[in-house]
Amino acid sequence: MIKIAVMGYGVVGSGVVEVFYKNHESIQKKAGKQMEIAHILDLREFPGDPHEALFTKDFNDILNDDEVKIVVETMGGVNPAYDFVKKCLLSGKSVATSNKELVATHGDELLEIAKEKNVNFLFEASVGGGIPILRPITQCLAANEIEEIYGILNGTTNYILTQMINSSVSFEDALKTAQKLGYAEKDPTADIEGADACRKICILSALAFGKHVYPEQVYTEGITKITLADVAYCESAGMVIKLIGKTAKLSDNKVFATVYPAALSSHSQLATVDDVYNAVMVRGDAIGDVVFYGRGAGKLPTASAVVADVIDCAKHLASRKYVSWSKGEKDYVEDYKQDTVAMYVRMKTTQEEVEKAFGKVKFLSYEKAENGEVAFITDAMKEKAFDSILSLVNGEVLSKIRVLDI
Amino acid sequence: MIKIAVMGYGVVGSGVVEVFYKNHESIQKKAGKQMEIAHILDLREFPGDPHEALFTKDFNDILNDDEVKIVVETMGGVNPAYDFVKKCLLSGKSVATSNKELVATHGDELLEIAKEKNVNFLFEASVGGGIPILRPITQCLAANEIEEIYGILNGTTNYILTQMINSSVSFEDALKTAQKLGYAEKDPTADIEGADACRKICILSALAFGKHVYPEQVYTEGITKITLADVAYCESAGMVIKLIGKTAKLSDNKVFATVYPAALSSHSQLATVDDVYNAVMVRGDAIGDVVFYGRGAGKLPTASAVVADVIDCAKHLASRKYVSWSKGEKDYVEDYKQDTVAMYVRMKTTQEEVEKAFGKVKFLSYEKAENGEVAFITDAMKEKAFDSILSLVNGEVLSKIRVLDI
Repeated sequence: MIKIAVMGYGVVGSGVVEVFYKNHESIQKKAGKQMEIAHILDLREFPGDPHEALFTKDFNDILNDDEVKIVVETMGGVNPAYDFVKKCLLSGKSVATSNKELVATHGDELLEIAKEKNVNFLFEASVGGGIPILRPITQCLAANEIEEIYGILNGTTNYILTQMINSSVSFEDALKTAQKLGYAEKDPTADIEGADACRKICILSALAFGKHVYPEQVYTEGITKITLADVAYCESAGMVIKLIGKTAKLSDNKVFATVYPAALSSHSQLATVDDVYNAVMVRGDAIGDVVFYGRGAGKLPTASAVVADVIDCAKHLASRKYVSWSKGEKDYVEDYKQDTVAMYVRMKTTQEEVEKAFGKVKFLSYEKAENGEVAFITDAMKEKAFDSILSLVNGEVLSKIRVLDI
Repeated sequence: MIKIAVMGYGVVGSGVVEVFYKNHESIQKKAGKQMEIAHILDLREFPGDPHEALFTKDFNDILNDDEVKIVVETMGGVNPAYDFVKKCLLSGKSVATSNKELVATHGDELLEIAKEKNVNFLFEASVGGGIPILRPITQCLAANEIEEIYGILNGTTNYILTQMINSSVSFEDALKTAQKLGYAEKDPTADIEGADACRKICILSALAFGKHVYPEQVYTEGITKITLADVAYCESAGMVIKLIGKTAKLSDNKVFATVYPAALSSHSQLATVDDVYNAVMVRGDAIGDVVFYGRGAGKLPTASAVVADVIDCAKHLASRKYVSWSKGEKDYVEDYKQDTVAMYVRMKTTQEEVEKAFGKVKFLSYEKAENGEVAFITDAMKEKAFDSILSLVNGEVLSKIRVLDI
């Protein structure tokens, strides 16, 4: 009998307990072991909860219970999750977490401790909610050299952009609806400014290329400046705007790692990923493009990914080798201005002014376009070069959105 | 040092050797073992091939080499692959295969032998080419009870249908182009009549629900009867036609397992899977819908899936428990006529005749519709009931296509 502890009984944590007991029989069969939840850590009270007897407010009840071999961390945030998880690993317990902030910030250290202690530190739920992505990247695509990953990694922003694109709802109104529906938090900053997607691309980059990328190394731009005019101009060119996390391996053992809104062809497999769905596109040298699609958040989808990790931990109490990466380095992430992209630009100027600086570009128009502004798409060039040329154009820049050919 | 043998040096087999040596360093690192290819079995001559020294025409060279621990089977077809694979497993060698016909026909028996002999029988490449799907279903979605799987499982038919839908090319012309491009074989029967997709849905059903489904138990309908008129009528209703493999668990421990062309909403995540791409949609009770998308065929994508299995075999020379299923049963697959579906029908009759039998239906039209024919979509009902009602309508039935709400 393996005892399990759950730290954090919020949306995901309570979902883990629900999924665990709903499919208890088949989960135990798949793990090949009997399993029970022995403790649930939460500072709040849950009177009347069917698992009331298991609650504790004292982390030491878990840490000091030698029969607890697997700990689920679904508290979120770095503190005190980091301290708790570290102590669990050091005391020889495996940990399964959904906490992307924790993994993006301290994944390298925690994986190292897990390796030393011969236990597991697994985090399938930290990227793409329930979508299987970490194992497929590390195991199923193992014969490939992964070249690039592009992802729609945040459900909140994807819901807002879908509303703007499909229903011409303004950013502000779409955000309000998202909050009403529970898709966005009261303080939506981490979602709409891209920090959440940033953590996830850090994790994907580390998994794919073997070295930690820290959130502060990733150029991150949110979706707050996207307007319905941008949406309409892009639509006129057969494109949709999505918040895209990107990581790409460079030849000199560096990577690009960025998060920004990007205009994609409506034929892209990522263009049809709507509402709160997420998708991750992986480019391997043998397989070409593979896309994993599903619910990127939500109680049961995320919980099911955590429980899959618990099953894996139970089957292999000793450390798995397939997930590991080394510490990051200061210059490992290349300046995003060195990346080559085409640009969509909307500005107050004239076509003549634009062509004087950029030469031939593709001008866009739509029915309700404002007078006195022009929108255009440049050829692909280094972003640094683009900046220099743009500075030569007389007029106010209203929007700049990178155009990705994926 | 682990020795590997490759049986069959056709498209996939030569791709396996290519991928294996292209990423040799990182593949060995991921496997944690040194690996070399020791034998390549093929009856043909490959003069000048860089691996010429490894070729043999005698299977016994592989079988009797005790140092060979992993055998790749990329011959295709049931004979002699079945005999060879069985002998390899019985002699304690693990086998990785891309041969869907072999797995769909004899998977239960070969898995049983592998289990007894404590070796692996893996077949990631047999479904969806390089798309990771077998491991995600068995491991990553382990916390879910899988309810249904829908897949676009055959690249040839998907290419033909895409040509018909996007470019109004007739079935016959699209088939010719597919043959020219190497997407269809000279004898395209197994693809266009659905047999290939049928084998794959057998494998998916067995993986998801734990019991073998044999190809002859699966109602299978190809795409040869689809016309451009059907494509146009469906387009008028916002739908596209795709060849869909389906398996669904029923409450009485039976399953539905079918392959047929189906009309899907153009908003379906499967609707945008075009050309030779494949996709598999899995519905789990916790995760909801997950879709895996990628190249379903082709030399390197398929080879990369085989090599991933080889890596797994090398890491775990002893048998993995995650893949196994039991023998099939005669009445395990429910009569597809008991399934509930809406139907698209095109027939020579009048709207009045249709409504006399079916009551209210949704009539379709398009610009170049033939006089004297009507097309309509019924409500969802048991297919048995639909048949009875349809038989009451005076007139010749030209097409019947099931409508799936996925």
